[in-house]
Amino acid sequence: MSDVFEITEKDLLGRIGKLYTPHGIVETPTVMPVINPNLRLIEPRELKRYGAQMLITNSYIIYRTERLREAALSKGLHEMLDFDGPIMTDSGSFQLSVYGSVEVDNPGIVSFERDIGTDIGVPLDIPTPPDVPYARAREELEITLAREAEAKAYKGDMLLAGPVQGSTHLDLREEAARRTYEIGFDIYPLGAVVPLMETYRYKDMVDVIVRSKMGLGPDAVVHLFGAGHPMMLALAVALGCDLFDSAAYALYAKDGRYLTVDGTYHIGQLTHLPCSCPVCMAHTAKEIAGMDDATRTRLLAEHNLYVTFAEIRLIKQSILDGDLMELVERRCRSHPRMLSGLKQMMNYSAYIEKFDRVTKSSFFYLGPESARRPEVIHYNRLLKNLQVSGKVLITTRRDVDSRGFDRVFHVKAPFGVFPEELSESYPIGQSEVIPELDCEAREAALQNIADFISSHPGTQFTFAYDQPWECQSIERLAAIAGLIRLG
Amino acid sequence: MSDVFEITEKDLLGRIGKLYTPHGIVETPTVMPVINPNLRLIEPRELKRYGAQMLITNSYIIYRTERLREAALSKGLHEMLDFDGPIMTDSGSFQLSVYGSVEVDNPGIVSFERDIGTDIGVPLDIPTPPDVPYARAREELEITLAREAEAKAYKGDMLLAGPVQGSTHLDLREEAARRTYEIGFDIYPLGAVVPLMETYRYKDMVDVIVRSKMGLGPDAVVHLFGAGHPMMLALAVALGCDLFDSAAYALYAKDGRYLTVDGTYHIGQLTHLPCSCPVCMAHTAKEIAGMDDATRTRLLAEHNLYVTFAEIRLIKQSILDGDLMELVERRCRSHPRMLSGLKQMMNYSAYIEKFDRVTKSSFFYLGPESARRPEVIHYNRLLKNLQVSGKVLITTRRDVDSRGFDRVFHVKAPFGVFPEELSESYPIGQSEVIPELDCEAREAALQNIADFISSHPGTQFTFAYDQPWECQSIERLAAIAGLIRLG
Ligand SMILES: [Mg+2]
Ligand SMILES: [Mg+2]
Ligand SMILES: [Zn+2]
Ligand SMILES: [Zn+2]
Repeated sequence: MSDVFEITEKDLLGRIGKLYTPHGIVETPTVMPVINPNLRLIEPRELKRYGAQMLITNSYIIYRTERLREAALSKGLHEMLDFDGPIMTDSGSFQLSVYGSVEVDNPGIVSFERDIGTDIGVPLDIPTPPDVPYARAREELEITLAREAEAKAYKGDMLLAGPVQGSTHLDLREEAARRTYEIGFDIYPLGAVVPLMETYRYKDMVDVIVRSKMGLGPDAVVHLFGAGHPMMLALAVALGCDLFDSAAYALYAKDGRYLTVDGTYHIGQLTHLPCSCPVCMAHTAKEIAGMDDATRTRLLAEHNLYVTFAEIRLIKQSILDGDLMELVERRCRSHPRMLSGLKQMMNYSAYIEKFDRVTKSSFFYLGPESARRPEVIHYNRLLKNLQVSGKVLITTRRDVDSRGFDRVFHVKAPFGVFPEELSESYPIGQSEVIPELDCEAREAALQNIADFISSHPGTQFTFAYDQPWECQSIERLAAIAGLIRLG
Repeated sequence: MSDVFEITEKDLLGRIGKLYTPHGIVETPTVMPVINPNLRLIEPRELKRYGAQMLITNSYIIYRTERLREAALSKGLHEMLDFDGPIMTDSGSFQLSVYGSVEVDNPGIVSFERDIGTDIGVPLDIPTPPDVPYARAREELEITLAREAEAKAYKGDMLLAGPVQGSTHLDLREEAARRTYEIGFDIYPLGAVVPLMETYRYKDMVDVIVRSKMGLGPDAVVHLFGAGHPMMLALAVALGCDLFDSAAYALYAKDGRYLTVDGTYHIGQLTHLPCSCPVCMAHTAKEIAGMDDATRTRLLAEHNLYVTFAEIRLIKQSILDGDLMELVERRCRSHPRMLSGLKQMMNYSAYIEKFDRVTKSSFFYLGPESARRPEVIHYNRLLKNLQVSGKVLITTRRDVDSRGFDRVFHVKAPFGVFPEELSESYPIGQSEVIPELDCEAREAALQNIADFISSHPGTQFTFAYDQPWECQSIERLAAIAGLIRLG
């Protein structure tokens, strides 16, 4: 068990947790606004107003800027930034990836982070970008792992992050996660995912997150490094990410961009402000677009923070309510590439099911992806243990002659069969489905019915179905059950 | 053409319009907060702060309350309510439907509305509830139509609403709409839809709206009477509704309920406030839940108004951007019954297509319903005019040997075929689709391909397809085209 992280609530791979830091407890999931120590768009102490609990800044920028270095070493990072909550610092890895070299080594930067009193430090890892040759990803990963192990000797009382690299080579990501976890860190950033998000490669992002999770213990605090767009937060939390950081709120603001949970607008493109935050209630789009650069940037940054933390609160509430999956299904309709990400998430349902909470207040069918939810797998896994024998009728309609059968099962898509006595139990009783069957919901139900039949070889099954169920897949059931077409 | 309504932008059946009233121009779509003249939770003049342009109150309550009646007759409605914008008044029809009788007749209430200076008055129509026998719906409809015709003689300079009734008998709704439109009114409320919304019958709501629209001219201002939950606004606007009214903001607030675009929470159920409105930024859920009744109700009403008008602004922006369909597809995933409503909307795509704008900035594939969008129908209708002859290859892959063919067409789901020269044009070039084909997207494309082939009988077609397209429906193409299975 992690000695800095306590999980209080779960839904899918998502969780609400308490992260204990030298400067207080942070409730996760949360986003850390990125502070540029040279250019404070919004004063760090003001950020709490928008919902921020914790900040992240760059120790390397402080290190190589004499004025900042002196101040940080003499007064400490917190006094220098005038912020009394937890602060994480990045190490210069990003600069290393951009410029090819940095003016500090791994022990040097970790010692510096420790000396200025950062709450969570990061070693000088190598953020290997997506799609590089396997050999390079492997080579850089070994350097990263060695530096991470080395960093532990210099960390002092500081919490230490162990970044997980491996590029888009998923076996390397999983291995990196496992080996980093074995070394043992306080938080685990998943590195170099920004290029995936910038190019809308959410399917690959899902792969990288899930394969990393598979290598980490469930108690590992996972930080999706560089990710903070409100559009993808629900999906990433559902996959088990706890921490995010947002430079976007400020960088996008400088560029005139206005964040929403469904994507990004340029302020000049907006006639109406589709938000009720204090900024948007006090101004029109035209007013903001016409302001001087500094004021416009400041207001957009504030709006961007408001929407980001409102989304974090909605995600937390959804975890408490057990309806995070429904939120993810909605959010993944902001863009077709997000939908691809959702479909990829469902390819990991059997894995997610192992960690998901056992009951939820409801199950909403919201599209083909709902048919492959972890809850559907969970239900059918349990159902296989049900004892049945003799002649069993499985029927899609209730008004059917069941004389001559020892037992009757009903059908609910996408789940499959259920006996009357489970009709009020979770998830059958709590699932809201629609009469208009998507093809995937029908196919999932038929597959689950076939699996149920196959797992009870001593029993004689008959399947009675009506018109909405008519399809080619019915024929597959003919080999294992009698079929009755209801008029 | 309506002489009080000017349409400035369109998307689907939705539009942005200007409604000219005696107290100023209202930009539609918009929601009119309902004012209870006996109990002003929020002062009418304050409502503009949340985004309200126009209010609605009940003339019958004013009429039968002596103090209010005297004040309204002597000072006028606007001074009595201290609101200088447009005010619509309902007539007592609701009370009639609840109590069976009212203490005023149709000429009496219309004259009263006129005398107190209402901007838009409503006759004493009969709001026939859903599911009543046909004969009753017919009988009440004839009374409503007679009273509507009668009301015109008493309206003076007031704008007059002609409610469309007919219960859930869709032919009656369409007839009611047509006959009401023939009599001629300034706005057309669709009546008695509240019971449908209260029971989540969004599929039936879609039917009632669309069939009413079919009877009305496109210049008719449509008011979805009694509807104001932010969850269904985008869907209703997309179907052509321009005005809404919300008693919900106040009634729900009294009951401790907190509205969101995805549904309703009870404030006591919330740990986190998933919103960034001024109320939610200034308070925690626990604080609000623990306040005295009046303060809690006031704050919840303010939040409810903030989210309602933020949604109206998003809907307007989406109409301007031509991506209202994408918003509707997201919003219809708040509940499976909303998804049923969306699927029902797509059953009317051929009708919607006739009024939809011709090009849009993008087309996002977001699920099986996207496959049936009006844009897909529109594209294929135009495509049928394309001249082709000789030997034509239709191929799902580009790296295919096309020697021996006079022409090559490519395939994009859900649209169907496209020639190279249309690959950059709308909608082919602007459509973002996913490689993971939902069964409905594939079937729609195959159907569109079959229709295209059938509409060019002199041409010899060959269809070359690869693995994702493998399915039973391919066999149907065998009768009208040569088939090549690509390895
Ligand atoms: Mg919920
Ligand atoms: Mg848009
Ligand atoms: Zn805002
Ligand atoms: Zn709020």
